[in-house]
Amino acid sequence: MRKSDQYLKKLQKMGNNIYMDGKKVPRDHEQFMPGIRTMSETFDVAFDPQWEEFATATSHISGKKINRFTHIHQSNEDLMRRRELTRRFFYHTGVCVQRCGGADTMNALSVVTYDIDKKYGTEYYKRFLKYLEYFQENDLVAPITMTDVKGDRSKRPHQQTDPDLYLRVVEKKADGIVVRGAKNCNSMASYGDELIVSPSRALTKEEKDWAIAFAVPADAEGVKIIASGMSPHKRKHDSAIYSQYGGTDAFTIFDNVFVPWDRVFMMGEVEFAPLYGGTTAIYHRFNYTACKPAWTDLFIGACALAAEYNNVERHEHIQEKIGHMIAVAVLVDAAGQAASKQSWKAGSGTWVPGSVATHAGRWLAGSNMYKEFETLSDISGGLGTTLPYEGDFFNAETGPLLHKYIKRKDGVDAENIHKLWRYIQDTIASGQTGYMQGGGLHGGGSPIMETIGLMHDYDVAAKKKIVKRLAGIPTE
Amino acid sequence: MRKSDQYLKKLQKMGNNIYMDGKKVPRDHEQFMPGIRTMSETFDVAFDPQWEEFATATSHISGKKINRFTHIHQSNEDLMRRRELTRRFFYHTGVCVQRCGGADTMNALSVVTYDIDKKYGTEYYKRFLKYLEYFQENDLVAPITMTDVKGDRSKRPHQQTDPDLYLRVVEKKADGIVVRGAKNCNSMASYGDELIVSPSRALTKEEKDWAIAFAVPADAEGVKIIASGMSPHKRKHDSAIYSQYGGTDAFTIFDNVFVPWDRVFMMGEVEFAPLYGGTTAIYHRFNYTACKPAWTDLFIGACALAAEYNNVERHEHIQEKIGHMIAVAVLVDAAGQAASKQSWKAGSGTWVPGSVATHAGRWLAGSNMYKEFETLSDISGGLGTTLPYEGDFFNAETGPLLHKYIKRKDGVDAENIHKLWRYIQDTIASGQTGYMQGGGLHGGGSPIMETIGLMHDYDVAAKKKIVKRLAGIPTE
Amino acid sequence: MRKSDQYLKKLQKMGNNIYMDGKKVPRDHEQFMPGIRTMSETFDVAFDPQWEEFATATSHISGKKINRFTHIHQSNEDLMRRRELTRRFFYHTGVCVQRCGGADTMNALSVVTYDIDKKYGTEYYKRFLKYLEYFQENDLVAPITMTDVKGDRSKRPHQQTDPDLYLRVVEKKADGIVVRGAKNCNSMASYGDELIVSPSRALTKEEKDWAIAFAVPADAEGVKIIASGMSPHKRKHDSAIYSQYGGTDAFTIFDNVFVPWDRVFMMGEVEFAPLYGGTTAIYHRFNYTACKPAWTDLFIGACALAAEYNNVERHEHIQEKIGHMIAVAVLVDAAGQAASKQSWKAGSGTWVPGSVATHAGRWLAGSNMYKEFETLSDISGGLGTTLPYEGDFFNAETGPLLHKYIKRKDGVDAENIHKLWRYIQDTIASGQTGYMQGGGLHGGGSPIMETIGLMHDYDVAAKKKIVKRLAGIPTE
Amino acid sequence: MRKSDQYLKKLQKMGNNIYMDGKKVPRDHEQFMPGIRTMSETFDVAFDPQWEEFATATSHISGKKINRFTHIHQSNEDLMRRRELTRRFFYHTGVCVQRCGGADTMNALSVVTYDIDKKYGTEYYKRFLKYLEYFQENDLVAPITMTDVKGDRSKRPHQQTDPDLYLRVVEKKADGIVVRGAKNCNSMASYGDELIVSPSRALTKEEKDWAIAFAVPADAEGVKIIASGMSPHKRKHDSAIYSQYGGTDAFTIFDNVFVPWDRVFMMGEVEFAPLYGGTTAIYHRFNYTACKPAWTDLFIGACALAAEYNNVERHEHIQEKIGHMIAVAVLVDAAGQAASKQSWKAGSGTWVPGSVATHAGRWLAGSNMYKEFETLSDISGGLGTTLPYEGDFFNAETGPLLHKYIKRKDGVDAENIHKLWRYIQDTIASGQTGYMQGGGLHGGGSPIMETIGLMHDYDVAAKKKIVKRLAGIPTE
Repeated sequence: MRKSDQYLKKLQKMGNNIYMDGKKVPRDHEQFMPGIRTMSETFDVAFDPQWEEFATATSHISGKKINRFTHIHQSNEDLMRRRELTRRFFYHTGVCVQRCGGADTMNALSVVTYDIDKKYGTEYYKRFLKYLEYFQENDLVAPITMTDVKGDRSKRPHQQTDPDLYLRVVEKKADGIVVRGAKNCNSMASYGDELIVSPSRALTKEEKDWAIAFAVPADAEGVKIIASGMSPHKRKHDSAIYSQYGGTDAFTIFDNVFVPWDRVFMMGEVEFAPLYGGTTAIYHRFNYTACKPAWTDLFIGACALAAEYNNVERHEHIQEKIGHMIAVAVLVDAAGQAASKQSWKAGSGTWVPGSVATHAGRWLAGSNMYKEFETLSDISGGLGTTLPYEGDFFNAETGPLLHKYIKRKDGVDAENIHKLWRYIQDTIASGQTGYMQGGGLHGGGSPIMETIGLMHDYDVAAKKKIVKRLAGIPTE
Repeated sequence: MRKSDQYLKKLQKMGNNIYMDGKKVPRDHEQFMPGIRTMSETFDVAFDPQWEEFATATSHISGKKINRFTHIHQSNEDLMRRRELTRRFFYHTGVCVQRCGGADTMNALSVVTYDIDKKYGTEYYKRFLKYLEYFQENDLVAPITMTDVKGDRSKRPHQQTDPDLYLRVVEKKADGIVVRGAKNCNSMASYGDELIVSPSRALTKEEKDWAIAFAVPADAEGVKIIASGMSPHKRKHDSAIYSQYGGTDAFTIFDNVFVPWDRVFMMGEVEFAPLYGGTTAIYHRFNYTACKPAWTDLFIGACALAAEYNNVERHEHIQEKIGHMIAVAVLVDAAGQAASKQSWKAGSGTWVPGSVATHAGRWLAGSNMYKEFETLSDISGGLGTTLPYEGDFFNAETGPLLHKYIKRKDGVDAENIHKLWRYIQDTIASGQTGYMQGGGLHGGGSPIMETIGLMHDYDVAAKKKIVKRLAGIPTE
Repeated sequence: MRKSDQYLKKLQKMGNNIYMDGKKVPRDHEQFMPGIRTMSETFDVAFDPQWEEFATATSHISGKKINRFTHIHQSNEDLMRRRELTRRFFYHTGVCVQRCGGADTMNALSVVTYDIDKKYGTEYYKRFLKYLEYFQENDLVAPITMTDVKGDRSKRPHQQTDPDLYLRVVEKKADGIVVRGAKNCNSMASYGDELIVSPSRALTKEEKDWAIAFAVPADAEGVKIIASGMSPHKRKHDSAIYSQYGGTDAFTIFDNVFVPWDRVFMMGEVEFAPLYGGTTAIYHRFNYTACKPAWTDLFIGACALAAEYNNVERHEHIQEKIGHMIAVAVLVDAAGQAASKQSWKAGSGTWVPGSVATHAGRWLAGSNMYKEFETLSDISGGLGTTLPYEGDFFNAETGPLLHKYIKRKDGVDAENIHKLWRYIQDTIASGQTGYMQGGGLHGGGSPIMETIGLMHDYDVAAKKKIVKRLAGIPTE
Repeated sequence: MRKSDQYLKKLQKMGNNIYMDGKKVPRDHEQFMPGIRTMSETFDVAFDPQWEEFATATSHISGKKINRFTHIHQSNEDLMRRRELTRRFFYHTGVCVQRCGGADTMNALSVVTYDIDKKYGTEYYKRFLKYLEYFQENDLVAPITMTDVKGDRSKRPHQQTDPDLYLRVVEKKADGIVVRGAKNCNSMASYGDELIVSPSRALTKEEKDWAIAFAVPADAEGVKIIASGMSPHKRKHDSAIYSQYGGTDAFTIFDNVFVPWDRVFMMGEVEFAPLYGGTTAIYHRFNYTACKPAWTDLFIGACALAAEYNNVERHEHIQEKIGHMIAVAVLVDAAGQAASKQSWKAGSGTWVPGSVATHAGRWLAGSNMYKEFETLSDISGGLGTTLPYEGDFFNAETGPLLHKYIKRKDGVDAENIHKLWRYIQDTIASGQTGYMQGGGLHGGGSPIMETIGLMHDYDVAAKKKIVKRLAGIPTE
């Protein structure tokens, strides 16, 4: 298991292929530091005895103690601990864990490579196990690298005017393949070790060149990572915990990238493409059933605290709004528990969360994302948005006046009111706001994907049959 | 364990205290038969080997095999079986089980009588156990008899101009007490054996006379049961299963009713009043987390079948509407599972479902009640409401024409289309519709009660603390 | 202008072609009387000086004073008076006006027949004017007779296995045409004078036989009207105004019905089919923008009165729920006003309401239909659903007890509480409930039709252009 | 009428009392320039013949042609033109007009000062007219300066531990008054000419010192304006129109500010305090019924364009989502039209918009604010949030690749796709996002204020009476 300083040192040694706003930037660029600090915590908590039970696991291949974020789920219990780890981590930093992506992709690989081999006698699973050993041994970090840029959405990959709009193989060689294309929404790619790529959609038999899965180092030749977004909250005076953490996003271009065969995990087995997408998504949405209720808890806590400081906590409409957020948090969590309970063992021995409960939980979470921002804005009032800059609270001329005028109920110091509203503003009206909203809505798949998943996996035919029996319609 | 014919025979022998629309009516009145048939099934399934695991239990007091609807939950596992029984029963009949009420009240008595005794050294629990023995031995049936008529809602019981607007003791005698008042929304009181009464709200120390719990036979002297509602679907021609079942409601008046001491389970211990209300409600809402998803499944099945017959099943907006109903069904069920898992053992050894998950599940179910009727109406089109009467489909002149004109996609017989739309109309536009909607909304407590329950039982203080820590606010 | 007794006498003389539940029934059957009484008011208010301004108009063809329900809109002002008439009428009876249907169809005919003639030099408009004269002179009543039964919804009319699943011409003769098919959801057909038929959808050039519009007397040979639904509230004791009124529905079969040429208003001009459907729908939805806010006002009044009697009127959650209903009522009404203002003059001189505002208003009304029942159920509590039958309130033994136990705040008589909750129960939990809900949702077109209408008629291209200009994208 | 260069020159000459992030900053600070450019347009369009009809008016006091933003509404027609001006202006810049605030406050002053004088024989209206002359002559600009900081929300102004938590008079002198306190959410205060202050709530007779209205120059001695927020979109390469405009917010402190008597418009007449708040709010909410539909149109245009570029414009779920936004835009606009039509003439001759329709429109707009961001995020996909920085599109190494990979349907240039998604990201995921959301929710009063307004101004008593009549309850 690595410690955070080892992780950072490795980042600093990696190749020079990160771009931001028109310039090449180092991997430890100031803008990435909130994300790097978040990632660092994933290493360091594993050495904390209070976290050990959740943050570490025993590798099923090496028998060694490993960071749970590199573990392949071996039981229902593993899934439950994974959710608990995610929840605690979210409480710990107040932001997206980010490391889930690579872990979810690795678990999906463990399922799909095995199933392909079973059908075709290929050796993807063997390659995967070797790669997994390397991944666990070096305690590596990777984003999900799945979403294609998709071009004309009414056309399939092979129908696009530019065939590269879905990532594909452009050359097969004796020692490996050459790939070209782009993947999008790759969150922490700028400060990750690896990129693990798989297809984002179902493919037809004309689309063998698009049916590829593989892994490359994040600084492999031909890879260009274009980092974006999410201005971290810079603090000059107060160093609140939450303001240390954050994230970024990335658009990753594979400009004729060579991948040696031992890192290729699918090449042309088109019918397995949806299994890659589906399995990765299930693992990722399953994690949302853990982080999302934890995040909702932060909205609940912030709303309740703002109402307490305003001395309106007992008002019916406040209670009702917070009550509804509680219901959502509890229901999404219950869906995650049910998904753990309904998990099943894939051919490779890897445990996969129950699909229906996972989708239902993720759907409710996503559907309420913007609503939660609205409620926090509603309860915290105009100042939740319009709080003056931090500097004005520390300026000798304006500071005392601002502290005087933000006072609320007796017994609560103006400093604490300032801190709470600073936290609220950073949530609902900072450079991060839209990123968090967009991620909460689309992360792990847009809302319509959950509806599709529910229709696909729920046994609707059985429900029709029950109705037929009750209504007197022959059920055959 | 009784069989349904024994149940019916006993009903027919009971006293003459049922009123409906201005007349005294027998307990086996035609209008009650759909309800009686539903209740009858609760007896008969217990003798069916396929139901045995769920529909029977072993009494913890007698060791005998009993009907699960008279059982006091002895484990987490009992709660899970109870939910499974409820779900299956709903699929079996398509209507409200109704027998849950008495079972929930008995479980609440088992918890509260014990706790009162512990504090006061009273002997309510002993009396309860004796009554339970009688209840299990005779396999009895009872409604929830809790909701007071409440008068002026801005006043407490003892502030009402007429003190009887909350049921109370008007005389204490050597051999028992005399009670006066009314209870409302007592569902199957007209065809139940017993009435088990408890307070519906928190009480103050001035309100000892209202702090009473007791049981009387449903035909005790002074009891007047005024039955109402829910026109059963009368079928002349087709005898679909669902049309055999139904329910009614009742308004029960206690006009100076004598209760012997051995049937009195609380007398003046005001601080335990909310525990009666709360515990009964938790058990009842917990059952909703089982019957409500089963009911939603009927909506899902009916919508999917209607869409299939119309040949529009793959349309995006159909998929989305059904998908959302699935999400609700799955989430309410997950909440029930979580509530089972989070259940706890009360002093008496009775298991009580986790409150937070129960409330969240019941809240989601209630919030979506009217929405589900709307969706079924939406997908089944105008004819879901305006289907001609059954007779017209069997009239020689109009029958063939109606069958001709309700045809939809090839391969589905007009008779089956008729049967499905008959089922739909009986759901969304019959004399039962409003009863089912009102029951779905208010049963087990109106929506605002769940919000109150969630605010009360969720650990909001812990969430405030998490936010304080992240925001840098001292946590003490 | 007729008086109601003339209307009734004519009904009683009409032919014998009404069926209900397997039997032929007279047009003045007890079940139809609430509907007939509603219709009767449409005649009698026209003679009331207080209604004259709204309930009468001056015929643009005869110059005579006519009932406004037979008038062709000659100005923006006519549209506004029409809305005012509808609103007042709804307040007057508490139920659907029903007579709008025929009036809307006649206005649509006045627009479309003129436009067809203009293109083809046909003489439909001349025929229409003659028919209109007859219609106005005899002060006639007709339902909308437009909705086809539609069979397999994925197929066009000419692709159906049974071509009659959309009403069509089966024979053309020298003196007229013979039509076959069925129309559905024809509300007051059982007590109307005429049936005026037009196509319900766009048609292709293969579908000339389906492109027909015509009028026949409601008792024409071959017409079979199968009446259904909506049990009227029968009152034994109290005769509240609202309980006198009601409606029914009908499924109308045209079993080889002959139509003379002078009553044929389209025959094969397929491209005008959507104009018939669209124009009728606009008029009908426009009326919804008047009746629906009036209906919402009844929900508002009932909720506010129930809250007042319960003495909880000032509670925040009550205020918020009623406040939202007010917003909906006001917005739907505003949409109707905007649609009047944006109305335009068709070729024939008939005024047509603005489409976009009409659709938006109808959409909001329909979207909130079930919600309003839910709110009334919520605020009126369990008793809104479970109120005992009327007879029990007049029975010597139970009446005084029921009156005692339904008392609420001091100063409100139990009789009035009974009357209000009777009104509420008849709204939310009677045989009419589902009919009103289904009609509120689907009447004038299901919710998805308004979305389609909005997308079709709103100038989305202009909005794209505004965004292009702001974003710096060339707008050509 | 001023031109924008005169406005800017005056700003640059004003006193030095703007603070931002701990420093004093000039009024033409870079961060304020997007707001200043927006304000500048309000001057310059008045000289454009195409805008003249809406952007200018004739002063009712001087008879001169003035900028409409300084006009006192003299007719229903003025209100309609005002809405049209607002709508066009929003289309023109894509951002909040900001100048409405001062105009709304001036109109409120014109109503309230007159009414106070009528009751007390004071001379506020005379003072107001003199101030208005100055305001119109110099074509001035001012924010709404009404929202008090409010302290403990459960306490009235005079009950606060610190009485300054509502702005108040601390000294009355021969030549004027001295005021102390703070006002919040003052939008464009940093680049406005004046501050016009009025009370934000109802006051009791103990609260005469808080019942004050007055105007001071924005750089008056003792005024400290603390500016905040809303990072403008800085563009290095592309200069899209929308990116030139923006806004800021301000927290304004009145630290013992002297106000001469001729600028005092209320001093102690407590019962008129709610009229100030209410009238200002009505004018401001009325403007929302114009800008909000225009803003929704930008969401509609952006969604439709994104769907077009993605080639999914005809998908049902896209149509439905855009259709619902159209309905909201049309309904809010219809409410504004109805409010114009229902406007009334106050004692001073000033026209005031109808309250009920104004509240209903603002409520619907506010309720859908976050939803519209959600829909744009939903339809524009992940890239709406995660689009790389502008610089990367102009870097020689990454630019061509990014343009290659954001291509969508044939025939749409990558440059235009980039421009649209840049516009979308700046809307849904930039430093402005949360400000726009918070302003959309709270501006003109938080959502609960509209509910309160609706309950207050809608004639609920009349609706109760209608229900009483129908239900047979005596109406007295």
